[in-house]
Amino acid sequence: MRKKQVNAMEVARLAGVSQSTVSRVFTPGSNVSEKARRRVLEAAKELGYRPNALARGLIMNKTNMIGLVMGDIQNPFYPEILDKFTKGLREKGYHLLFVQTKNDEIQPNEISQFLEYNVEGVIVTDALLSSNVVSHFSENNIPVILFNRYTKDFSCHFVCCDNYSAGKEIGEYLVQQGHRRFAYIAGRMNTSTSRDREKGFREVLGPKGIEPVTEIGNYTYEGGYQAALRLLTGDHPPDAIFCANDIMALGAIDAAKSLEVSIPEDVSVMGFDDITMASWPPYSLTTWQQPVDEMIKATIHTLVNEIEGENEGPISVLLPGSLIERCSVSTFKK
Amino acid sequence: MRKKQVNAMEVARLAGVSQSTVSRVFTPGSNVSEKARRRVLEAAKELGYRPNALARGLIMNKTNMIGLVMGDIQNPFYPEILDKFTKGLREKGYHLLFVQTKNDEIQPNEISQFLEYNVEGVIVTDALLSSNVVSHFSENNIPVILFNRYTKDFSCHFVCCDNYSAGKEIGEYLVQQGHRRFAYIAGRMNTSTSRDREKGFREVLGPKGIEPVTEIGNYTYEGGYQAALRLLTGDHPPDAIFCANDIMALGAIDAAKSLEVSIPEDVSVMGFDDITMASWPPYSLTTWQQPVDEMIKATIHTLVNEIEGENEGPISVLLPGSLIERCSVSTFKK
Repeated sequence: MRKKQVNAMEVARLAGVSQSTVSRVFTPGSNVSEKARRRVLEAAKELGYRPNALARGLIMNKTNMIGLVMGDIQNPFYPEILDKFTKGLREKGYHLLFVQTKNDEIQPNEISQFLEYNVEGVIVTDALLSSNVVSHFSENNIPVILFNRYTKDFSCHFVCCDNYSAGKEIGEYLVQQGHRRFAYIAGRMNTSTSRDREKGFREVLGPKGIEPVTEIGNYTYEGGYQAALRLLTGDHPPDAIFCANDIMALGAIDAAKSLEVSIPEDVSVMGFDDITMASWPPYSLTTWQQPVDEMIKATIHTLVNEIEGENEGPISVLLPGSLIERCSVSTFKK
Repeated sequence: MRKKQVNAMEVARLAGVSQSTVSRVFTPGSNVSEKARRRVLEAAKELGYRPNALARGLIMNKTNMIGLVMGDIQNPFYPEILDKFTKGLREKGYHLLFVQTKNDEIQPNEISQFLEYNVEGVIVTDALLSSNVVSHFSENNIPVILFNRYTKDFSCHFVCCDNYSAGKEIGEYLVQQGHRRFAYIAGRMNTSTSRDREKGFREVLGPKGIEPVTEIGNYTYEGGYQAALRLLTGDHPPDAIFCANDIMALGAIDAAKSLEVSIPEDVSVMGFDDITMASWPPYSLTTWQQPVDEMIKATIHTLVNEIEGENEGPISVLLPGSLIERCSVSTFKK
């Protein structure tokens, strides 16, 4: 059994302040004078007081918990995202309840803990959300925001890199460098990220009479490796491969090396994300940098505003990224 | 505001069972007949009932939450660990409250949420715990277990790969392969993992008159890269480098390549962990596989036993790993 807990009233008495002052000191973002804060913290320390988040959650309907759903944490893009969300939410006084989904589409039982623990909001990263699961949340007035994806099946806040425009810019760039035979290594086909990058890419190439070959790489290193092997040993090997994420591009580069196909002399490889490994010397991957910090900031901002009732209708944020030129794309091939 | 919640009594009435049966159905691991479970779940669905974990936490002192502290989530070893803990704890009915520490040593304010949310236990991975922070937990009867590290400063459960024995076996193996000039690239110096691997390694080499040179790589790719550059461009370049983790070994391999030093012909590189990238073709890293699944299982088992009051005194689990031979260590050099 836990020992009896000191309560806020005892702290207030010792500090010589009101109980509501004690409560404000322990509520992130509340207004309280520095002097009062110091006296309360000293009294709390002396008495061994700690505010009980569970009781506060029940009484004030304020748990300060945000649920985060993530799927493929083995893709190095996502640990970085988790890292940044943890820090960013912490700055706003929120804690992270983390769920990792084993499935492409989130199952109701996987998010039951979010309902049970009364999270104040939910961030969904690389997992699909059915309208069924969303309605579970909306029935309980728990706002949901999609990060790095969106859906047309229901209205929902989302923050996304402008994947369609990025796909177009990447197509333009590769054509400018003199490439003519294109391939696209797609991620999981049911993701908006992969579809939009491909759509923009094709819309630029189509009018120039170029029809990229598509292979599926499922957003994994192994998938990218195998897709590149198929492309490079086929009848019409491409001179440029655009991969829907970096980890597949690393696989594609290693596949080319295994065939003694030189990069970028024989084939150019372009990635998407700008994960840490993209800059490692054996890869030196030319890629598209997602504006991760801005995306995280916009996601937290939108979600916190929604929790505080300040949004009017669903918010959509599309942010541009930027091309990072390294050595995996040849320039001015004629 | 959230809408009024259905309570357990209403579910019990509709299902024709007692309220305690309803409670048992929603408490992981409780004993309840299949027939009763089905009736309760149907009634709960019909009424839109969801058990309130916060209320249960306050009343029963049972929150089903476990706190997990992790530091360097950008080292690919740790996302895998997080992934497996999430799944393993879930199977036992526990949810993960995730804290990422920015500091080598966990600061009291970083773990205040664990106390506030009444977690039932805490798992600490790659972060240092001061006795001060541990006493915070023990005053609140919250058990702590160290994963992949231990400390002699205070008594605490821990589960660890037997790093000392592994260091010895790696030393023996590299000597058997004919190497004579050794270097060790250390991780962060204040970690038991790096110290123990080095200790075992030196204890095998010392009696053979071999004194390894040590460079610090801080457990990062960049650190390993720079350490290997210093070693390979120095006056006495080694013929074998043992790196205290894989990510530094990948950096060391890339540094050697940048100097046109061949692996394993000119220098052998040995890692530790067996992360996914170790098997990627450009690296094909010979390494030491930590028994991650067993380590996770032992950690969860020990922690759950402690929560249930079944342990007598601190439990120490040391597990062996195994050598994974790939192509970065030359064999039978004479």
